[in-house]
Amino acid sequence: MTAGVSSSSTEDAFSLERYLDHERKGVEAALEAALDRLLPLLPPQVREAVRQGVLSGGKRLRPVLCMAAYRACGGSDREGVAHVAAALEFIHAYSLMHDDLPCMDDAPLRRGRPTPHAVHGEAPTVLGGGALIPGAHLHLWRSASEMGLPPAACRELVAILAQAAGAGGMVGGQALDLLGEGRRLERDELDGLHRRKTGALLTAALSMGAVAARADSQVRKALEDYGRAIGLAFQIADDVLDATADAQALGKNPSDAELDKSTYVALLGVDEARGEARRLVRLALASLEGGGVESPALEALASYVVERER
Amino acid sequence: MTAGVSSSSTEDAFSLERYLDHERKGVEAALEAALDRLLPLLPPQVREAVRQGVLSGGKRLRPVLCMAAYRACGGSDREGVAHVAAALEFIHAYSLMHDDLPCMDDAPLRRGRPTPHAVHGEAPTVLGGGALIPGAHLHLWRSASEMGLPPAACRELVAILAQAAGAGGMVGGQALDLLGEGRRLERDELDGLHRRKTGALLTAALSMGAVAARADSQVRKALEDYGRAIGLAFQIADDVLDATADAQALGKNPSDAELDKSTYVALLGVDEARGEARRLVRLALASLEGGGVESPALEALASYVVERER
Repeated sequence: MTAGVSSSSTEDAFSLERYLDHERKGVEAALEAALDRLLPLLPPQVREAVRQGVLSGGKRLRPVLCMAAYRACGGSDREGVAHVAAALEFIHAYSLMHDDLPCMDDAPLRRGRPTPHAVHGEAPTVLGGGALIPGAHLHLWRSASEMGLPPAACRELVAILAQAAGAGGMVGGQALDLLGEGRRLERDELDGLHRRKTGALLTAALSMGAVAARADSQVRKALEDYGRAIGLAFQIADDVLDATADAQALGKNPSDAELDKSTYVALLGVDEARGEARRLVRLALASLEGGGVESPALEALASYVVERER
Repeated sequence: MTAGVSSSSTEDAFSLERYLDHERKGVEAALEAALDRLLPLLPPQVREAVRQGVLSGGKRLRPVLCMAAYRACGGSDREGVAHVAAALEFIHAYSLMHDDLPCMDDAPLRRGRPTPHAVHGEAPTVLGGGALIPGAHLHLWRSASEMGLPPAACRELVAILAQAAGAGGMVGGQALDLLGEGRRLERDELDGLHRRKTGALLTAALSMGAVAARADSQVRKALEDYGRAIGLAFQIADDVLDATADAQALGKNPSDAELDKSTYVALLGVDEARGEARRLVRLALASLEGGGVESPALEALASYVVERER
């Protein structure tokens, strides 16, 4: 069916580990460059909160997906698309910074380390998050222009990101998640919440890669369908991890159960949730195939999303 | 010198009160329309926090300045520019919502009424503020396109707003202000802080009016010089009001002195601060004259900025 699967036993098999390692280096370099412009404009405490929020590790899944989609569509400017993709991580970082605040999820740890507000204070974290949003838009614009993309494509990229970050996307989903605590959501409500909270930005990553590579609408749609499927799979896997791993392995706390959140595990149980995540991965792969998109990277990333350990 | 001054004693004298009343009605209508798109995407608590943050009065100075600049440059689409101008108020509203939070200025009152977080909670206020930033960008884009502006002008408008809202502008200025508490700033530091905290968005209002009306660069520069001058005058007047009015007249608390903030009154004393504000107003009027901009509205607004009582 695909290069990634058919060559998995050969010498030049696609190595997800090597691939992620390489791509993440590109993302880190792009993030450092983007921060070099943004940070000098901020006072030291805010600067450090933003630096920590953006640079303290993480899977870099959104930018990696954006870059993989771009390559799958035949794009060849690897460095240029890494800068475009970094804008996604600015938005993701802001959302985590605000989400971990005491008045929100009140999380002192993330990825095993103290959260930005725990180290640098709440006010610098609120302000730094606020600076990352227009910062992401401006950075995206500059990066897209520097790739030589036509103005209409630059504009579309910024609109995709703003839409995904906004009320109809990520921040609306965060709001539903946080304020829905204590009430048991039905499956369709839970899907709707996570399609916005995590799905919108993950899907935007795929759309942005397609637009940056000037892909046709059929390919773009296939990539977006893939994004929606793995977005939901990602969240289900997150719920399974939260229910089965201890805080140390996960690197964060408190747990969903402590926060009294609706989860796929509460709704389906661990086994059925795992099965549902795998079903969505198959759906994602079928979307790629249906759109004629051949990409060992995207195929491997789909499995990674549900098989990861944090 | 100008129509506004020369006709001030005649029957058809420019009435600032009537003018503000009329323009604010246009702004309120545009804000309501913009919220009609944004609010349904948010859960009820966040919706109410945003509604209160955006619609609970205020001088609407930024949109009014944008509309006045547009008219001064010969623009004739009054309704269109009100929608463009509303984007400025989205950003202004977000900044106040976040600025009043307990971890920031900890202000329970603004304009004599409880602040959004005091009524609707901190989390909905943090989230709602975060939704207003991409919301402002998307709204601005849509509105500029609907005015029939060419893509390059639409793009420039969004870039002006993002720049003014971002680390180099408003949010960077808020950060300097909040985190500089307790340290006495020199005059040039205080000017730098307020050129960003309030000046950047006020100046952006003028730039956006000029760009929306396709003004030439000389006129745009005159308007931006006017904006920078009245921006600083506005802040000095604010400090004077804070030092001389009681909380009830001002409609907010706590005072700058309680927050141990550097102010123009602490630096210059009340009388000299008042004199400095008036000097800046004269400078603003001279900028208009130098750029050949005739606008009774902008002239009257310059004086209003320093003579207002809240």
